[in-house]
Amino acid sequence: MMPESPIRKLVPFAETAKSKGVKVYHLNIGQPDIETPEVALNAVRNFKDKVVAYSHSAGILSFRKKLTEYYKKYNIDLTPDDIIVGAGASEAILFAMNSCLDQGDEIIIPEPFYANYNGFAINAGVVVKPIFSSIDTGFALPPMEEFEKAITEKTRAIMICNPNNPTGYLYSKEELETLRDIVKKYDLYLITDEVYREFCYDGHKHYSAMYLKGVEDHVIMIDSTSKRYSACGIRVGFMISKNKEVMKTALKFAQARLSPPSFGQVAAEAAIDVPDSYFDEVLKEYDARRTVVYESINKIEGAFCPKPKGAFYVVAKLPIDNSDRFCQWLLEDFNYKNQTVMFAPASGFYSTKGRGEDEVRISYVLNVNDLKSAMKCLEEALKVYPGRTT
Amino acid sequence: MMPESPIRKLVPFAETAKSKGVKVYHLNIGQPDIETPEVALNAVRNFKDKVVAYSHSAGILSFRKKLTEYYKKYNIDLTPDDIIVGAGASEAILFAMNSCLDQGDEIIIPEPFYANYNGFAINAGVVVKPIFSSIDTGFALPPMEEFEKAITEKTRAIMICNPNNPTGYLYSKEELETLRDIVKKYDLYLITDEVYREFCYDGHKHYSAMYLKGVEDHVIMIDSTSKRYSACGIRVGFMISKNKEVMKTALKFAQARLSPPSFGQVAAEAAIDVPDSYFDEVLKEYDARRTVVYESINKIEGAFCPKPKGAFYVVAKLPIDNSDRFCQWLLEDFNYKNQTVMFAPASGFYSTKGRGEDEVRISYVLNVNDLKSAMKCLEEALKVYPGRTT
Repeated sequence: MMPESPIRKLVPFAETAKSKGVKVYHLNIGQPDIETPEVALNAVRNFKDKVVAYSHSAGILSFRKKLTEYYKKYNIDLTPDDIIVGAGASEAILFAMNSCLDQGDEIIIPEPFYANYNGFAINAGVVVKPIFSSIDTGFALPPMEEFEKAITEKTRAIMICNPNNPTGYLYSKEELETLRDIVKKYDLYLITDEVYREFCYDGHKHYSAMYLKGVEDHVIMIDSTSKRYSACGIRVGFMISKNKEVMKTALKFAQARLSPPSFGQVAAEAAIDVPDSYFDEVLKEYDARRTVVYESINKIEGAFCPKPKGAFYVVAKLPIDNSDRFCQWLLEDFNYKNQTVMFAPASGFYSTKGRGEDEVRISYVLNVNDLKSAMKCLEEALKVYPGRTT
Repeated sequence: MMPESPIRKLVPFAETAKSKGVKVYHLNIGQPDIETPEVALNAVRNFKDKVVAYSHSAGILSFRKKLTEYYKKYNIDLTPDDIIVGAGASEAILFAMNSCLDQGDEIIIPEPFYANYNGFAINAGVVVKPIFSSIDTGFALPPMEEFEKAITEKTRAIMICNPNNPTGYLYSKEELETLRDIVKKYDLYLITDEVYREFCYDGHKHYSAMYLKGVEDHVIMIDSTSKRYSACGIRVGFMISKNKEVMKTALKFAQARLSPPSFGQVAAEAAIDVPDSYFDEVLKEYDARRTVVYESINKIEGAFCPKPKGAFYVVAKLPIDNSDRFCQWLLEDFNYKNQTVMFAPASGFYSTKGRGEDEVRISYVLNVNDLKSAMKCLEEALKVYPGRTT
């Protein structure tokens, strides 16, 4: 059965709050408010073809060629054949799971993890085996022994999201090397969702799984233009691998659905020309937002969050009995000066029942002033929440 | 294992032919040359939003509302909740299979059928059970007994494409009523792919499965804007059903992949304003093409095709030993005045091994003059093909 998305299940309560005139700060979703670069929008506005035809199933060739230049900047050497364009990273993940795993095979994912991985796994008939990463270690990679304990004869892959949604954790070079050793030893695939690869703070550098030596045939990188260019609606993501057999199989799945969206590809191809200064600006903005959230949370008595190093999420531990109940209560029964805040209960990001019940995921996708107001709401809410624990 | 697409497997041979300076008429694919309506392209050219955001997972609400008006013209009463927008009919079919069938469940499809159904079935973990529809009956619906013979305790759905790709057959009201009786009697879903619903000839009227009474909860209609507006690249299709439970499940799959393409939806919403005269023009053009193909084939000694009533395909029986070999030979070893023609071997549209070996699928997606030249190539080719049988 498809589980309910933790990001969406409270939407009706938010609607009710709004209908009562309460302003709701949406920190539950990953929809940034940053403007899509003009160069991308203009490419679509200047679309000249008379027929919007199918593109190549793997994506427009000129686009994939240009992508290889983009990755070259990050010292990742690709050919266009190493890239399949999907309708968002969502479809790319589905291609990856379908190509690397057979039905009933197992994939190990450190939890908490991006809840939609469950949906893709169900779609692909694959079984997710979670292993625990703790807020107490800042959601660092579980030690090798934990992976080894979880590996069975049905295990075919390990998946991580780096930088991490929902935790904001950035895996280090050493952690990637641990993963390299495991996938080599047990002959597994390593599927790394790197859609937030540009979003790293405090001078931390992103270490891609594509840098790992000796496991080139094991690594499948997932990427996307959604967050990079704040263009979630164009639906352009990538499955990238040096493994020719895997890519051949993935291409068949890509061919079955004919082609990725043409307009989105046109926008994404143009977006590659966005200057580095765009990212500098965007990153500065997110960094300021991150600081607001991180500092506000840790000032609240009984609340805690590790300092996120990447992406634009943080998982915070709160002095609450149950995060589903708390998040619903925030929308149903609370407001501070006619304002409230919406989070995603973190329980939905854990596969293991009972975990994350005192945690919420916060997306810092609003401007600094709104974030400050939202954090003030949280602070006031925790003063009066009936299910407060400490 | 994902099978090779019959539409694509000969592409390398076509490339080689072209590199030798031979003109190849592409009658292997369903990519129309008709222009996408200006009103659709202009809507995208005038895109005003600053952020290309995720749309609603089921599709932009204003778009789905407008779609209900579109279907009203065809006496199909829908609410926006009866519609989920997919990245093309491809994704809509995947949603339908994932929502109606569990892994290992069986779906009965008359063969020959659209080859990519195989890919979606593999993706969804569903088993296709083909039943035979013969060129000798013009590919009419197999009789009820054939369905009953194929039904097992694992059967959960019947799927048809109407008008049919690859055969061009248009199922009658009576045939739809036969299907109604079967799905009612055995409590099955009826998934009808109606993406060519506007493409009916000789005054034939399309009879939608949505018209069937008493099986509203059984019917899932698949539709698309790709062929309707010659806008294959926008990737906008639909899963439509009155069954609220099925739609609820499908929405979860839709939510897992976040949203369908925004630009495509903008184009498709605008396209609904295309006047009926557009379709009259397009249909007139296709009708002329159909006549060229139908008449040319049946003039060739030993060749035969039923008169197609819909879509823009026909399956033709040729005096050949093996359609894969013949189609490859056309590209590799034959040209007539430096021209040749590319078909899709019909064997790829049959699930049952050995069927369709003397048949090809012809897409009449080129203009009348090109089609005449292509048919002349076929005629000349059959005079000299070494594997000719009669």
